[in-house]
Amino acid sequence: MTTTEAGAAAPSEDNGHETVTYGYHHQKGEHLKRLRRIEGQIRGLQRMVDEDAYCIDILTQVSASTKALQSFALQLLEEHLRHCVADAAVKGGSEIDAKVEEATKAIGRLLRT
Amino acid sequence: MTTTEAGAAAPSEDNGHETVTYGYHHQKGEHLKRLRRIEGQIRGLQRMVDEDAYCIDILTQVSASTKALQSFALQLLEEHLRHCVADAAVKGGSEIDAKVEEATKAIGRLLRT
Amino acid sequence: MTTTEAGAAAPSEDNGHETVTYGYHHQKGEHLKRLRRIEGQIRGLQRMVDEDAYCIDILTQVSASTKALQSFALQLLEEHLRHCVADAAVKGGSEIDAKVEEATKAIGRLLRT
Amino acid sequence: MTTTEAGAAAPSEDNGHETVTYGYHHQKGEHLKRLRRIEGQIRGLQRMVDEDAYCIDILTQVSASTKALQSFALQLLEEHLRHCVADAAVKGGSEIDAKVEEATKAIGRLLRT
Repeated sequence: MTTTEAGAAAPSEDNGHETVTYGYHHQKGEHLKRLRRIEGQIRGLQRMVDEDAYCIDILTQVSASTKALQSFALQLLEEHLRHCVADAAVKGGSEIDAKVEEATKAIGRLLRT
Repeated sequence: MTTTEAGAAAPSEDNGHETVTYGYHHQKGEHLKRLRRIEGQIRGLQRMVDEDAYCIDILTQVSASTKALQSFALQLLEEHLRHCVADAAVKGGSEIDAKVEEATKAIGRLLRT
Repeated sequence: MTTTEAGAAAPSEDNGHETVTYGYHHQKGEHLKRLRRIEGQIRGLQRMVDEDAYCIDILTQVSASTKALQSFALQLLEEHLRHCVADAAVKGGSEIDAKVEEATKAIGRLLRT
Repeated sequence: MTTTEAGAAAPSEDNGHETVTYGYHHQKGEHLKRLRRIEGQIRGLQRMVDEDAYCIDILTQVSASTKALQSFALQLLEEHLRHCVADAAVKGGSEIDAKVEEATKAIGRLLRT
């Protein structure tokens, strides 16, 4: 929950992506912490393989890492919906359709993995 | 949880859910067709079990049914984002936060199954 | 999607599939009961769509049905491993490789849905 | 796929886990390579967050990492079934039940993430 002075120095032009960026900018510190923890889990997996840990224990750790990744994705998605998708809706026009379709496809990819 | 007597009698009042309902109303026929197909798949599974089909073949059919359910969910979700969530954004106020949180939780439940 | 006329007429010949069939034969009644419950859930989904239930409530019910299907698959898989795969191992020869590869592919399909 | 000369240089003590270890021992190099690639993907994710990449692009990369983890798990599982579970079946006794139950639970955890 680090706070950024996002937008402070922000340029005034309002291209679609910039606003999205603000979305998770707020939590950038938290996101990086999560990802570093996941990186640590993956290194832990390498250690387990290297030290001939029991298969099932390795699989348990894989499940934990996958869950952590999904949970990271879900948080990112929430911020994306709250900022980017909501902004497109407010702006009006047809952008909302493109944004929603794009988000839905991303969710579909997460579901299929 | 909530039930809506959507639009039918009272198109003018604008409670949050009404618009959602409209969202998939358009595709109601298509949704029902999809669900009936899935129901047919489940009955097919019963027949397979009953006729002692090979386990792996049953599992293949389970995967197909699960995929069909996920795909139905994804379409419903897309309509929900396009209508209900977008509408909340346009309305302004704090409803968008509640709607996004609710949608994210639903996505989380889909991911976890 | 092979169908087996398992065991019925020919209990003495020992083709790979027969043993598998025995695997879940024991639980046939339980499996059918589970599948009928899932069929009921799918019909419940149709009712929800028909009565314009709230999207999120429908998605919650989809998650429950998907979970029930996965749980059915998992039980079937357990019986398959216990009977068919284990039998192939005991018999010796190369069949175990084929059986394990087949089971792994089925698990992969479940994971990807 | 792989053949094991398991036990070749093997110590004489025969505790359940040892055989499992042989299972993926052969592929240890390959497994470590895969895991290092996944570690690289996670570091790539950190870079993306740090450089304010577009949410959807980050989500796509998360899906790829999750898929890579699942695929690693699937390979490990295949080796586990081929070696540990098959060995327990050959040995006879009740160990096969415990091994199958353990493997099924691990698969259940993978499915649920």
